Amino acid sequence: MIFYLLDLLGVAVFAVSGALAAGRAGLDLLGVVVIAAFTAVGGGTVRDLLLNRHPIFWIADSRYLAVIFLASLLTVAYMRVLPMPQNAFLVVDALGLALFALSGAEIAETVNASAVIVVLMGTMTGVAGGVLRDILTGVVPLVLRRDIYASAATAGIVLYLLLQAAGVKHSVAFGLGMACVVTIRLLAILWNWQLPTFHFT
Amino acid sequence: MIFYLLDLLGVAVFAVSGALAAGRAGLDLLGVVVIAAFTAVGGGTVRDLLLNRHPIFWIADSRYLAVIFLASLLTVAYMRVLPMPQNAFLVVDALGLALFALSGAEIAETVNASAVIVVLMGTMTGVAGGVLRDILTGVVPLVLRRDIYASAATAGIVLYLLLQAAGVKHSVAFGLGMACVVTIRLLAILWNWQLPTFHFT
Amino acid sequence: MIFYLLDLLGVAVFAVSGALAAGRAGLDLLGVVVIAAFTAVGGGTVRDLLLNRHPIFWIADSRYLAVIFLASLLTVAYMRVLPMPQNAFLVVDALGLALFALSGAEIAETVNASAVIVVLMGTMTGVAGGVLRDILTGVVPLVLRRDIYASAATAGIVLYLLLQAAGVKHSVAFGLGMACVVTIRLLAILWNWQLPTFHFT
Repeated sequence: MIFYLLDLLGVAVFAVSGALAAGRAGLDLLGVVVIAAFTAVGGGTVRDLLLNRHPIFWIADSRYLAVIFLASLLTVAYMRVLPMPQNAFLVVDALGLALFALSGAEIAETVNASAVIVVLMGTMTGVAGGVLRDILTGVVPLVLRRDIYASAATAGIVLYLLLQAAGVKHSVAFGLGMACVVTIRLLAILWNWQLPTFHFT
Repeated sequence: MIFYLLDLLGVAVFAVSGALAAGRAGLDLLGVVVIAAFTAVGGGTVRDLLLNRHPIFWIADSRYLAVIFLASLLTVAYMRVLPMPQNAFLVVDALGLALFALSGAEIAETVNASAVIVVLMGTMTGVAGGVLRDILTGVVPLVLRRDIYASAATAGIVLYLLLQAAGVKHSVAFGLGMACVVTIRLLAILWNWQLPTFHFT
Repeated sequence: MIFYLLDLLGVAVFAVSGALAAGRAGLDLLGVVVIAAFTAVGGGTVRDLLLNRHPIFWIADSRYLAVIFLASLLTVAYMRVLPMPQNAFLVVDALGLALFALSGAEIAETVNASAVIVVLMGTMTGVAGGVLRDILTGVVPLVLRRDIYASAATAGIVLYLLLQAAGVKHSVAFGLGMACVVTIRLLAILWNWQLPTFHFT
């Protein structure tokens, strides 16, 4: 139950992030909702297709779409009157990333995927929505080159798997994995951490 | 039978639209056929993947690919000698949108999806091909920001569902839904209707 | 066994090609590995999704991901000290294209697809990874407009099917199909062959 609510919260957060990107690209209201939806459920949809899990989660449970719709409209309404609360947003985004990464990993575990695939699916569930958002609004996916983002998700999932292998209770490992993602992500923003880039012509 | 022919006509129309976009981007002949194919069957393919319907419609029935191939070549041949009949094309494109949206909705109904999912799948079937076309030719998907397009599809599908709920015969509801999409779309072009855009920095 | 090894070699080659593109776009280390992975297994993944083959090949066999990881890191390390061996790379890339195209066609044959679908799936398996690489690094997919590339794959697959229809042994037809792709591709580079482009406003 708590995970289901956190999952809906994650969807809402990523929908807001998609709606903001659509606003930056000057899309109309429908475009805002569409980009919000891709951002919020894109990662989970690709994960479900790759793992052959049907029905896709948002087809089976309409609440996801309702949350996206509401979050998009509230974002539009809010931005008409108030500036964006930059810091609050970054914290909630980190929480959403952590949640999607860990729940994506957990779902990959339920189909008995190998550890490498679990890490990959979790990371992808966390970041693919943002990549789709960037492709659809016409920019090079920033997650691939900006500060530590996907790497934070990967680190948290690895910690989660290690803790489980060490016999730690599942919910504790899940919580510590999430805390790891959020901490790395926020420290990376605070101190401007970056992975080495790789540039040549 | 009449729906199957209309479906092939819709595929042909969207193939022409894809071939024209590929021409605008200066692609070679193969690129023209590829973009035409993505535009024509992209929406239906994503729908089939999401709803787990296999085999995908154009894998099961090769006529779709034959139609795309022919439509692409005829477009190239035609454009070498004559200017584009702008108005005729817009009318046929509106017809294609209407047809794909309604047939996409109908297919979602056959798997007992909820009404929200039916509307979403229908709209997506209608517009996703055009979005793929825009991504592949390197422009921000225009359907997301130009005049009423996806919204016309959504409106027609909602009408179709309401009429069915009111006990109207299926084929009549289908026809009226299509008429609704075409009407809204053409009036939107004629009077330059636009949804409010949502722009901030 | 020989095909499995060639398949891994093809994955390695395309991973290198993806890593080089990511380097050109100035991505960080994680981005390099991600783009390498999309390039190397993107075509096969789309093929498996469309043909409903589960589990996806790289989920079932972790060696593919290991090869991608290694190839990406070696590419980064190599480029820090030495210039790119342009010609060697083009030859190996042509080999990878040939291999992916033919093995994609072979897999489509195992699900009893029609000849048109076999050609299409093979060509797509060969080129889709490169298209994804280009979309993710923000350029118009070059395969759609540069010299003969996808067309070489198509020609080789057609030859392979014709030889099989003529009663030639499968492994011989496979080998001659590959040789056809490599030959056309290398001659196209050498003599700058291009398909006619199709450009209008």
